[in-house]
Amino acid sequence: MTDKNYYNVTEWNVGNPYEDIGEVINSIIADIKSRQTKSDINEGGKPGAVIYIPSGDYHLTTQVVIDISYLRIVGSGHGFTSSSIRFNTPKSEWADWHEVWPGGSRILVDSSLKAGDEESAGAAFYVKRSGDPRISSVEFADFCIDGLHFLDDGSGENNPENTYVNGKTGIYVASAGDSFRITGMGIVYLEHGVTIYDADALAVHDNFIAECGNCIELRGSGQASKITDNLIGAGYKGYSIYAQNFGGLLITANNIFPRGASSVHFSGVVRSSITSNRFHSFYPGMLEFRDNCSENLIASNHFLRDHEPWPPMQKYDNGLDDLYGLLYISGNNNSVIANHISETIDTQYIRPSGTAPVIIHVVSGKGNYISNNHIVATTEASKVQDAADESCFSAQVGALLTIGKLETLEVTTILVEKESYQNTILDSGSEEQVVLDRSVNAFRATPTPGV
Amino acid sequence: MTDKNYYNVTEWNVGNPYEDIGEVINSIIADIKSRQTKSDINEGGKPGAVIYIPSGDYHLTTQVVIDISYLRIVGSGHGFTSSSIRFNTPKSEWADWHEVWPGGSRILVDSSLKAGDEESAGAAFYVKRSGDPRISSVEFADFCIDGLHFLDDGSGENNPENTYVNGKTGIYVASAGDSFRITGMGIVYLEHGVTIYDADALAVHDNFIAECGNCIELRGSGQASKITDNLIGAGYKGYSIYAQNFGGLLITANNIFPRGASSVHFSGVVRSSITSNRFHSFYPGMLEFRDNCSENLIASNHFLRDHEPWPPMQKYDNGLDDLYGLLYISGNNNSVIANHISETIDTQYIRPSGTAPVIIHVVSGKGNYISNNHIVATTEASKVQDAADESCFSAQVGALLTIGKLETLEVTTILVEKESYQNTILDSGSEEQVVLDRSVNAFRATPTPGV
Amino acid sequence: MTDKNYYNVTEWNVGNPYEDIGEVINSIIADIKSRQTKSDINEGGKPGAVIYIPSGDYHLTTQVVIDISYLRIVGSGHGFTSSSIRFNTPKSEWADWHEVWPGGSRILVDSSLKAGDEESAGAAFYVKRSGDPRISSVEFADFCIDGLHFLDDGSGENNPENTYVNGKTGIYVASAGDSFRITGMGIVYLEHGVTIYDADALAVHDNFIAECGNCIELRGSGQASKITDNLIGAGYKGYSIYAQNFGGLLITANNIFPRGASSVHFSGVVRSSITSNRFHSFYPGMLEFRDNCSENLIASNHFLRDHEPWPPMQKYDNGLDDLYGLLYISGNNNSVIANHISETIDTQYIRPSGTAPVIIHVVSGKGNYISNNHIVATTEASKVQDAADESCFSAQVGALLTIGKLETLEVTTILVEKESYQNTILDSGSEEQVVLDRSVNAFRATPTPGV
Repeated sequence: MTDKNYYNVTEWNVGNPYEDIGEVINSIIADIKSRQTKSDINEGGKPGAVIYIPSGDYHLTTQVVIDISYLRIVGSGHGFTSSSIRFNTPKSEWADWHEVWPGGSRILVDSSLKAGDEESAGAAFYVKRSGDPRISSVEFADFCIDGLHFLDDGSGENNPENTYVNGKTGIYVASAGDSFRITGMGIVYLEHGVTIYDADALAVHDNFIAECGNCIELRGSGQASKITDNLIGAGYKGYSIYAQNFGGLLITANNIFPRGASSVHFSGVVRSSITSNRFHSFYPGMLEFRDNCSENLIASNHFLRDHEPWPPMQKYDNGLDDLYGLLYISGNNNSVIANHISETIDTQYIRPSGTAPVIIHVVSGKGNYISNNHIVATTEASKVQDAADESCFSAQVGALLTIGKLETLEVTTILVEKESYQNTILDSGSEEQVVLDRSVNAFRATPTPGV
Repeated sequence: MTDKNYYNVTEWNVGNPYEDIGEVINSIIADIKSRQTKSDINEGGKPGAVIYIPSGDYHLTTQVVIDISYLRIVGSGHGFTSSSIRFNTPKSEWADWHEVWPGGSRILVDSSLKAGDEESAGAAFYVKRSGDPRISSVEFADFCIDGLHFLDDGSGENNPENTYVNGKTGIYVASAGDSFRITGMGIVYLEHGVTIYDADALAVHDNFIAECGNCIELRGSGQASKITDNLIGAGYKGYSIYAQNFGGLLITANNIFPRGASSVHFSGVVRSSITSNRFHSFYPGMLEFRDNCSENLIASNHFLRDHEPWPPMQKYDNGLDDLYGLLYISGNNNSVIANHISETIDTQYIRPSGTAPVIIHVVSGKGNYISNNHIVATTEASKVQDAADESCFSAQVGALLTIGKLETLEVTTILVEKESYQNTILDSGSEEQVVLDRSVNAFRATPTPGV
Repeated sequence: MTDKNYYNVTEWNVGNPYEDIGEVINSIIADIKSRQTKSDINEGGKPGAVIYIPSGDYHLTTQVVIDISYLRIVGSGHGFTSSSIRFNTPKSEWADWHEVWPGGSRILVDSSLKAGDEESAGAAFYVKRSGDPRISSVEFADFCIDGLHFLDDGSGENNPENTYVNGKTGIYVASAGDSFRITGMGIVYLEHGVTIYDADALAVHDNFIAECGNCIELRGSGQASKITDNLIGAGYKGYSIYAQNFGGLLITANNIFPRGASSVHFSGVVRSSITSNRFHSFYPGMLEFRDNCSENLIASNHFLRDHEPWPPMQKYDNGLDDLYGLLYISGNNNSVIANHISETIDTQYIRPSGTAPVIIHVVSGKGNYISNNHIVATTEASKVQDAADESCFSAQVGALLTIGKLETLEVTTILVEKESYQNTILDSGSEEQVVLDRSVNAFRATPTPGV
């Protein structure tokens, strides 16, 4: 009795995994399908299989197509290292580096994979199945998907590796799926890390998804899923987390760092939760609710917005000005409770110049409840940026730890637009800091200290 | 030097794992015990072992009995798929299905396993040991326990697969244990998923436990444990999470979906935490504190109660009416802070007809602190249920996303019974929405918007 | 094509892993380095490797030195059992025990490993590399590091196993690292469990780190890391979690039990988050912010301080008296929102005798926001401690569950020292319970119930 349902890509008899792991995995999937032909035999019959990817570098030139349930693709290491730092270091210095590329069980997504007319054509792993039941319990665990390079996007960018564009996606789930799991993965330098349509009971847990154009996108519709305990950080153009028409999404315990045009962007998402996360951004619009997002909870999160400290990225932003709001809320009956929000920025960087930045911006809808948020706004201590030499780590940590010589920055902690009404704003700013129409909203100012 | 402490059930020399994995695992455990006979030799001696279950279907007719520490039983996939949807689809359609049953590393619990005089007789995995020390570090990881079928319970139910009764338990821990781990499991169609007595430092993390009569039950007493980051949903008769006489339980980051008579039921639980979860239920009583639960924290959770949208389950409920409360609190000095609670239901479904549903119901005890909860109550938009054709997913997502034509539903956000006093209720409802005796409780109404 | 990047320590050709796994692992690392010599070849070249430790007892007399990225050291079980209970049980009883020592994939750290002039000399696993890039993606998973014994520290302690001193460290990372992962580990009876300098994007997740002098120490500086979903409990002398000069640390979903001089101690930490944890301590000072910790969030946590119930440990404490504060806050603009804090202690144990214990103590800094915390203080029900016979578990659970005959204990819920000002204190204590200068701080008392 040997274990026929366990496949090691380096031991399979078709293809060469180092040259094209896609061909190998597709051949393995075909083998599973040829062996597991009938279900309902003895109440079983199609248990699926494991495909193991040992530590190593595996080029992928053929897209993996998954249309069987219970398939687990598992490696031995997420292998993340910063490609952004490397690509912003002179290539002449690479010769002295201990290693240059990511590692672990690493898929190198070839440039032949590229979104064309179909975005999915650029996916390393493409999941699609029609008919019943929905495809279930596909698992990706403990390996690395590396998009390798970004490309010249015609914007005149002199370093194409900073464009966050390459037409590649790590995992693309095109059809409704149930009980998928993505855990322990490292996903880097793809235009889209993970794109999933119509998810039900999905778990995206304990991954490292960073330096992608967009990190996690839940599209179509979906319910009852969780994005938990991940380290995430998209490029300046995209979303760290995006969800569309979702109900019952739980986003908790994530540490979401810059850049990301948005840390979280919801479109038509309802009855979902964003709690106990740490968010850090260099731009306004770090959390956006659009298209009538309603009855969501934003609680116990830490938000920080400061200015980009790393010289190679200082010329980028997401195009939003400081009147947009760090949190942009459109929709009804949402709750924003017990968050800490820090904005620390020198006045020279504020746009439009001379204005007071908006922290929470309620633009439409009614019945939102914004209570007991502590909003701290300060100017940065003066800090000489040593542009040429400063490493990303020391620049970022230096900026993060810069506290002490701070002066208060004047901000609008809450701005409720006229289009929005019947909101309740409690203890989230002083009389001067909160701007709303008191005839149609309820307001209680945070008591002001005596001095 | 071969690895004697690693066992693959498909390679063991006793029994046939596909016919009775219980016999195989018990034989392996006997082998471990025969080899690891002495502790304190060279400060070691009994390291335990790993029992690996490859992807496949394994019938279990003999109960596994575990009485050694440091045993890890591990598979290669949680293999969840919805059995409830299958059993509510005409069998004639199954022939066209890609697959019919759950998968992964799947244990099929035979009908010979059944609670008789002893409930534990129905357990697939039974852990018990007397003497010292307590059994420690037993781990269950990454496999599927499938109870296969529910049974006619004499209730006249025409589909026995909807009874949630079969006398089977997945994992039953009868004696005090320390530092157990249950992770990555798929547990489905058992009357009891996981039942654990006298737990200390237990971790139930990142599992998929659903479509069981009850999902996780911590009985006897216990301390310092965590139920975190799971997808959970019991049947309409039972508990998604139940705990008894527990101190220091942490329930966080779980997404607990319907049905579940209760999402969380505490009996005599103290100094425990329910935070950052997402709860969804179709009935009142979604969270219950009974038998003097005290000094617990309920914070930053999202609660949603709406009406069952899926036709096959619309005839069931948990028997509670809308005056019971979505949260039912009996005990002292509990905290309910910064939660979002949505109730969305058409008035036709409210029982007793014409009453205002109760959201948080404090029935006894004193000193509870209920603050800054946002309670949103609306009637559902009218929605034609296409009973025959609607899939569970589309019915549920459709219902979840139904927002926009809503009208306010009159509710009692907080009801404090006369038996309870010295409670503090802040910013969790208007003057009209909160019912309590102001002479013995403290109250501050949520300010009301001007319009 | 064999998998050269997978090493089983029991199958390696140098050394004997049972006698000195350190020699074996160092030899394996040397082999990896000899094989993986060039990076940038075909955009890869140095993927790292897996070193697998089967279940078993492995002595370590030679320190493991790690200087390669993408190395994953993985076992098959965290193997925790309480050594403290064993060492406080008469040795004569051990003969009847089922097993005496921890298990799983267990490293026994030899007494030859010991901090001398260099603390790092006592580390079982020592990570250090100079040059570029920073060492990345080193992973420790699913094994046990056991320090075996504590030592006579000259304090006159009659049971040296209770000193929490032995000069040993489990994992010591001396140089800046990126994207490290520590998951599923069991770490016990070391003076320092995990000590990491200059961490970036570190994940310490789902471990069992207990009965160590200190559990997790993040030193130097660092950013964007997470300590999540762990079971943690240091000895009475040390820190369960310590962090220094850190920005963007997320501590969530942990269950941190006694003893621990501090559950969390921050020194110069900023813009970090402590949310949704459960903390239990037997002493004041369970959470400390020192050296200008600023803009941090403490929300939705459950804190419990009671009296040590287990006789062998009742003679120890951390030396702090009850005026110190359970939470000790020094710094600016921190947020303490929506926490539950219980103190349950007989008046006889309060020091200085007859004083009212302080719960939250703000000692310096300005702009802190302390809102909607529920502080419950009671005297313990009288309870006869049966010192000789009571097991640690029954003593602790008995104490934890002791509720019902409680009388209110007079405490200062918030004390703001004169050195601190412009703080805002809302709904976290009555007029009598909060002590501050109202001319320089904002205060709103929790409304008082009528009776």
